[in-house]
Amino acid sequence: MLARMSARPRCSVFIATSLDGFIARADGGLDWLALVEAPGEDYGYGAFVSSVDALVMGHNTYATALAFDAWPYGGKRVIVLSRDATPSRHGEEHTAEAPVALCARLAAEGVEHVYVDGGATIRRFLDAGLIDDLTISLVPIVLGTGIPLFGGIGEHRLTLIETRGFPSGLVQVRYRTRAA
Amino acid sequence: MLARMSARPRCSVFIATSLDGFIARADGGLDWLALVEAPGEDYGYGAFVSSVDALVMGHNTYATALAFDAWPYGGKRVIVLSRDATPSRHGEEHTAEAPVALCARLAAEGVEHVYVDGGATIRRFLDAGLIDDLTISLVPIVLGTGIPLFGGIGEHRLTLIETRGFPSGLVQVRYRTRAA
Repeated sequence: MLARMSARPRCSVFIATSLDGFIARADGGLDWLALVEAPGEDYGYGAFVSSVDALVMGHNTYATALAFDAWPYGGKRVIVLSRDATPSRHGEEHTAEAPVALCARLAAEGVEHVYVDGGATIRRFLDAGLIDDLTISLVPIVLGTGIPLFGGIGEHRLTLIETRGFPSGLVQVRYRTRAA
Repeated sequence: MLARMSARPRCSVFIATSLDGFIARADGGLDWLALVEAPGEDYGYGAFVSSVDALVMGHNTYATALAFDAWPYGGKRVIVLSRDATPSRHGEEHTAEAPVALCARLAAEGVEHVYVDGGATIRRFLDAGLIDDLTISLVPIVLGTGIPLFGGIGEHRLTLIETRGFPSGLVQVRYRTRAA
């Protein structure tokens, strides 16, 4: 077999939602994530982040990250999908490229694995057929209202890779996307 | 200890949703449930239905059941929450009682375990603090649009009882509700 350049990097989602599918309260609040905080348990987040070469996120997720006490993505390449020429604060890049064009460029630059984050960005990438796998951590709470992960997108069939419950009540489900 | 009448029956939810939390397509379509049909596997539905004394559902779920080739609840007491005096076709009862009053009456009638079904009815019972446990079967598909199970209700913390993945890709999660 001949070695060949991949047409695009593998794109993965790793995100927590309430049981009713919200990634944040309507005001962006993430306090409810504390329900599943447990000493020494990161639910695979560290290993996942170590496996990616770059993060791609929308401007809302970026704004959330900027508001943290410390920049949470130190040492990782971060690409923010934004039409604004926001000044970079931690080396992050801003681009207005569409997902397909961005993925093609990242592949050409040798990026093999991308962490796609933020509701709107995940939905754009899903509908563009660019998501390979999703790891969703279901927090044992119904928020009732909030910012949804999904909604208003096309249909996507999934293949279950694995599921696991944790003592905190968090249930993690991992899927591969399937050709329609 | 003295035996005493329970103030209300145990109320359980047993429902399938897409990964994005829809219980049906926007037109009520349930075709996507076929993705997880497997010979000899009912995902615990039969045992669950055997454990209940009565079903309580809203008029949309009732209309869906009426459209099936055969009435799916033969031999079970069925109570439809409806303000219309719809004629009973299979012995089902219609009531305009609020959930709390209905539960009190059912307890007085000796009903110990109720299956609460249908999105709007489940949400009403949840917000009234009347749901004891929820079994949700996550079908491996993102529908994108449809009729949601949750949305527009209060906050409810849950305790995970168990979770299980099936070869079909269905993931079943079971929770107890918790006092707020």
